[in-house]
Amino acid sequence: MQAAPAPPPFSEPAVAAAPASGRGASLHALLRELYPVPRSLTGDGVRQTLQLLQRRLLPGLVLHEVPSGTPVLDWTVPAEWRLRDAYVATAEGERIIDWHAHNLHVLGYSQPVQSWLTLDELRPHLHALPAQPELIPYRTSYYHANWGFCVSQRQLDALNEPLYEVCIDAELDPTGSLTYGELLLPGEVDDEVLISCHICHPSLANDNLSGLVVAAHLAAALGQQPHRLSYRFLFVPGTIGSITWLSRQTPASLARIRHGLVATLLGGPGAFTYKRTRLGRADIDRVVAQVLRRGGYPHELRDFVPYGYDERQYCSPGFDLPVGCLSRTPHGEFPEYHTSADNCDFVQPDQLAESLQLYEEVLRVLEGNQRYQNRQPYGEPQLGRRGLYGAVKGQGNPRQAEMALLWTLSYSDGQHDLLAIAERSGLPFEVIRRAADQLQAADLLAPLPATA
Amino acid sequence: MQAAPAPPPFSEPAVAAAPASGRGASLHALLRELYPVPRSLTGDGVRQTLQLLQRRLLPGLVLHEVPSGTPVLDWTVPAEWRLRDAYVATAEGERIIDWHAHNLHVLGYSQPVQSWLTLDELRPHLHALPAQPELIPYRTSYYHANWGFCVSQRQLDALNEPLYEVCIDAELDPTGSLTYGELLLPGEVDDEVLISCHICHPSLANDNLSGLVVAAHLAAALGQQPHRLSYRFLFVPGTIGSITWLSRQTPASLARIRHGLVATLLGGPGAFTYKRTRLGRADIDRVVAQVLRRGGYPHELRDFVPYGYDERQYCSPGFDLPVGCLSRTPHGEFPEYHTSADNCDFVQPDQLAESLQLYEEVLRVLEGNQRYQNRQPYGEPQLGRRGLYGAVKGQGNPRQAEMALLWTLSYSDGQHDLLAIAERSGLPFEVIRRAADQLQAADLLAPLPATA
Amino acid sequence: MQAAPAPPPFSEPAVAAAPASGRGASLHALLRELYPVPRSLTGDGVRQTLQLLQRRLLPGLVLHEVPSGTPVLDWTVPAEWRLRDAYVATAEGERIIDWHAHNLHVLGYSQPVQSWLTLDELRPHLHALPAQPELIPYRTSYYHANWGFCVSQRQLDALNEPLYEVCIDAELDPTGSLTYGELLLPGEVDDEVLISCHICHPSLANDNLSGLVVAAHLAAALGQQPHRLSYRFLFVPGTIGSITWLSRQTPASLARIRHGLVATLLGGPGAFTYKRTRLGRADIDRVVAQVLRRGGYPHELRDFVPYGYDERQYCSPGFDLPVGCLSRTPHGEFPEYHTSADNCDFVQPDQLAESLQLYEEVLRVLEGNQRYQNRQPYGEPQLGRRGLYGAVKGQGNPRQAEMALLWTLSYSDGQHDLLAIAERSGLPFEVIRRAADQLQAADLLAPLPATA
Repeated sequence: MQAAPAPPPFSEPAVAAAPASGRGASLHALLRELYPVPRSLTGDGVRQTLQLLQRRLLPGLVLHEVPSGTPVLDWTVPAEWRLRDAYVATAEGERIIDWHAHNLHVLGYSQPVQSWLTLDELRPHLHALPAQPELIPYRTSYYHANWGFCVSQRQLDALNEPLYEVCIDAELDPTGSLTYGELLLPGEVDDEVLISCHICHPSLANDNLSGLVVAAHLAAALGQQPHRLSYRFLFVPGTIGSITWLSRQTPASLARIRHGLVATLLGGPGAFTYKRTRLGRADIDRVVAQVLRRGGYPHELRDFVPYGYDERQYCSPGFDLPVGCLSRTPHGEFPEYHTSADNCDFVQPDQLAESLQLYEEVLRVLEGNQRYQNRQPYGEPQLGRRGLYGAVKGQGNPRQAEMALLWTLSYSDGQHDLLAIAERSGLPFEVIRRAADQLQAADLLAPLPATA
Repeated sequence: MQAAPAPPPFSEPAVAAAPASGRGASLHALLRELYPVPRSLTGDGVRQTLQLLQRRLLPGLVLHEVPSGTPVLDWTVPAEWRLRDAYVATAEGERIIDWHAHNLHVLGYSQPVQSWLTLDELRPHLHALPAQPELIPYRTSYYHANWGFCVSQRQLDALNEPLYEVCIDAELDPTGSLTYGELLLPGEVDDEVLISCHICHPSLANDNLSGLVVAAHLAAALGQQPHRLSYRFLFVPGTIGSITWLSRQTPASLARIRHGLVATLLGGPGAFTYKRTRLGRADIDRVVAQVLRRGGYPHELRDFVPYGYDERQYCSPGFDLPVGCLSRTPHGEFPEYHTSADNCDFVQPDQLAESLQLYEEVLRVLEGNQRYQNRQPYGEPQLGRRGLYGAVKGQGNPRQAEMALLWTLSYSDGQHDLLAIAERSGLPFEVIRRAADQLQAADLLAPLPATA
Repeated sequence: MQAAPAPPPFSEPAVAAAPASGRGASLHALLRELYPVPRSLTGDGVRQTLQLLQRRLLPGLVLHEVPSGTPVLDWTVPAEWRLRDAYVATAEGERIIDWHAHNLHVLGYSQPVQSWLTLDELRPHLHALPAQPELIPYRTSYYHANWGFCVSQRQLDALNEPLYEVCIDAELDPTGSLTYGELLLPGEVDDEVLISCHICHPSLANDNLSGLVVAAHLAAALGQQPHRLSYRFLFVPGTIGSITWLSRQTPASLARIRHGLVATLLGGPGAFTYKRTRLGRADIDRVVAQVLRRGGYPHELRDFVPYGYDERQYCSPGFDLPVGCLSRTPHGEFPEYHTSADNCDFVQPDQLAESLQLYEEVLRVLEGNQRYQNRQPYGEPQLGRRGLYGAVKGQGNPRQAEMALLWTLSYSDGQHDLLAIAERSGLPFEVIRRAADQLQAADLLAPLPATA
């Protein structure tokens, strides 16, 4: 016990510094500030969002612009969508559907239109939710030329004029670009943890401003302290953004990514849900499962499904990156999903703060989880003369800290990492991590390189 | 969806063409025609049986004759048994046990005998079933010189004469031969499916005329349509027949056998029973389990046991062929087993038809189960511009057919065949098979060779 | 059946010769004789114990003396402890704590002391059990210079004198030695079974005179009969003894150890407990589990924990020997543990005899468990013409002995040992073992070398 090791990088107190309530308030304030920005796959809404993150929390965030028309893997960067105005008005000029009232009113990536239409002509372009008549749905048509409005069923039912003025003052600029944000926090080693969130949804709070603000706070906290691993945060438009980013990587840069999480849906009321990587055997799968279980969080573990968020791209079989998705209630499984009810009231500060805390606990285990080689593997080393073991014997099992030393020595055989030893022993990861520090300080353990 | 692929070989409609009732009638008619033929390991009964199959359904069936005395693996082809007459008669000349009344009355492979015996001398040669006093048992003594009669306990109890004439007019001809039938249906590839049934039992309907008529109909149907795999049907006397056939194969010919089933006991009332291959890890084990489960058939899966039918020989460790046994209630587990109660009433047309249908479903999965390589494995390919994906997004999970495309792309990584993808996704095999066809037509999948 | 094989080495009758009651009496008599000997890590108590084993049962037992100060792995052989007298007396000279009354009264490895102390000065050197006020605890301080007495709480509470004479007439001789006993019983092959027990505890019957007397009787019985494997018995002081022995081995000598058991706590009333080897995949793990299960012994199987007895040293990752620990109720889980209540009444003759019988059954399976190669692996060999199979067929499943022949032939493929075949078939190991003997006699099986 005497041989106190150097404090571990990214240690517990530093991360959990701010009181949860204070952090919840900070998370929610940022979310409210971002809520009204009109985001889409491309355009100024995305740029404003990223610039706001730069100003508030992440001065080092780099904004990348990739020209429309650039081939990216099997896809092409789309034209940049610029929306200036959009409404449906009566002959009297009353705007009965107005984009300025709610971002969701316009079908994402609508083509420009300026016309007078009968109700029958207009109706195929109106999207509503008959089962949730008060809510505006969220709809897009990114890769199929179209235009439309999203309205509540109540609004739709009230339409009774013979003729409407329809205006979508938009531009699909083939000389524009797609914007994404990237932040690298170099650590002691090049091995990287990838945290990715999608930023393309307009005024939807849980999907995915919640992921965005949690990721941004996580990055800000990490930037304040030393850490062993390197961290790469991606703020990308969904699907095309991760595909664009992937298309610009080299095999060597991708090989550095040892763990990854897609951060999304982190503000709703539901239990945590972890979706495993494609093959389900990555370290991140074991780490998240362990943290959720040991932390006593209500949660569900699910196998990979090739539908969801950007883990679809990271886990595609050619890349096969070890990226899971850690959310609360998944997409499509809560009634507010992709509607105007996914707003700033639906997402609560405490829920955001708890999500942030969970991500921090996961990173803490990733930081601490290494493989070691027992340097005195022939018989047990004599811990007593190193001050690591009690003196009078015969009173039954040793203390937990002593048992942790024995477990760590016994299984530091090159096959087990500290997490495996924690799982095998039933002891908390932190206790095993501390034992490894003591043993390393006593020259009884040597770190092994991460497995390829 | 537009890019309609070529219709798969051995497609659903073709196989299921005849209505089940019509097929049941056809199966049962053949069974009734074969029932009275006096079969044994060798002799004209086997030849007549195979010739009848040739005439009725399988003109391409080849009859092989292997001379008695030929060494076959650890065995020797036995003398050919020719039985002309067999009876026990009273002094008055009344035939109280008569082979012409029922084939089962004679112990199989009885030596010739012509003698007058007291009841006490005769009794050790009479086999009956005290617990089933109305039934004649089926008994043989192929490899141990003996003679005997099988009678009902009721008949046995009625014997009260002092002296009986005993006659078995039989010949064990060392210049005879063993006969078996073989039919090869070449497919697009050399990989073979082996379907084997034993044909040596006399008037027993379930064991194994049921397997014989199902196999023959299966072969006839396959002969009418294109198929990817090659199919080899064996109609062999039990044990010595499969050993004889195996002894005549080359390592190269055996290596072509990728899957196999022993077809037996397919007409009784019981649930299906699948007995796995020796090591239980063959494709056929997964395929049959999947078809039984997804088809909702009441069934039982059992591990290999080194007793049963000719799978014992195919699965012997030197050959270790991937051959399972797919039956209804297994041998010895129904009261009619190896008695005169296993007759044409015990086997019902619908049971035979359902067995045939199950075999066809198994073959359909074997036909369709291939491994593919995703040709655009870096990120998801853009399905929308290939017409494979819906346009307006945001409404929750895609349709089953779209999910099948994503599953198939995600796991076509060289490690998973389509059956594994069906199991992993929970989608029906046919839906995954169809997705693979669409993706191959869109040049997004390339077939991989079967694993060695 | 006729081809009777040579009787297997170490056959059933020889081992189970003595009636259990007689053996229980013999075991318990030796235990009572050893109980009063004042043992410790080193010293004459250990020598007397080993010499008594030599005289009574094991004339071939070799006593090794290793000088104090010898470096052994990460440890050093301690000074030899010689205790001549120890007491606490009143001013009137009344010995109120007296080593001669009970060995446990002295803290093991106490430094010499001769002094007058107040009760307050004495009290930190007195160890008692408040929750078990009648019992004397067992305590040691081997590697931390100290002195002390162990007393019942009742004794402790009665102390009320102002001043006590304290005397520990002991010597820690740096020119002494550590003593351990070793007995090798060579078998037909060099592959060894290691049986190890700790002998350093003074008057404690279950921990570990029980292990000591069971191991000694086991060795004596083995010495009376032929056996295939070699057996190495170690009687060592705990921890430092096994470390000392390990330090004197060569890689080649350690490589001969194919199976091992630490024998301890074999006389208490509890169910058997088997603690697996470190990785839990050794043959000994399968064998003990099978013997416990098939023998109908109440028992518990536990994974390895890096605390306990000398298996900690044998299983340390550098050696990683396949050594489990087979005991009754484990250390610390019964109230008599490490107290004066662990005496000759606590350990009963029948419990010792049953433990001995279990160890013999385990060795019988180890002796008989080999891998074979089927020499006629292509199809089934014709057992009938070798007299191994019944003649008239058709009456259902063969007898157990015939099934055992088929199982053994089918799975003697180089991958399965006889134990695996017994587990797979559900047949008793002895039945499979007998089948292998018959098949080997018929030249149908050939033994394979043990796997490395």
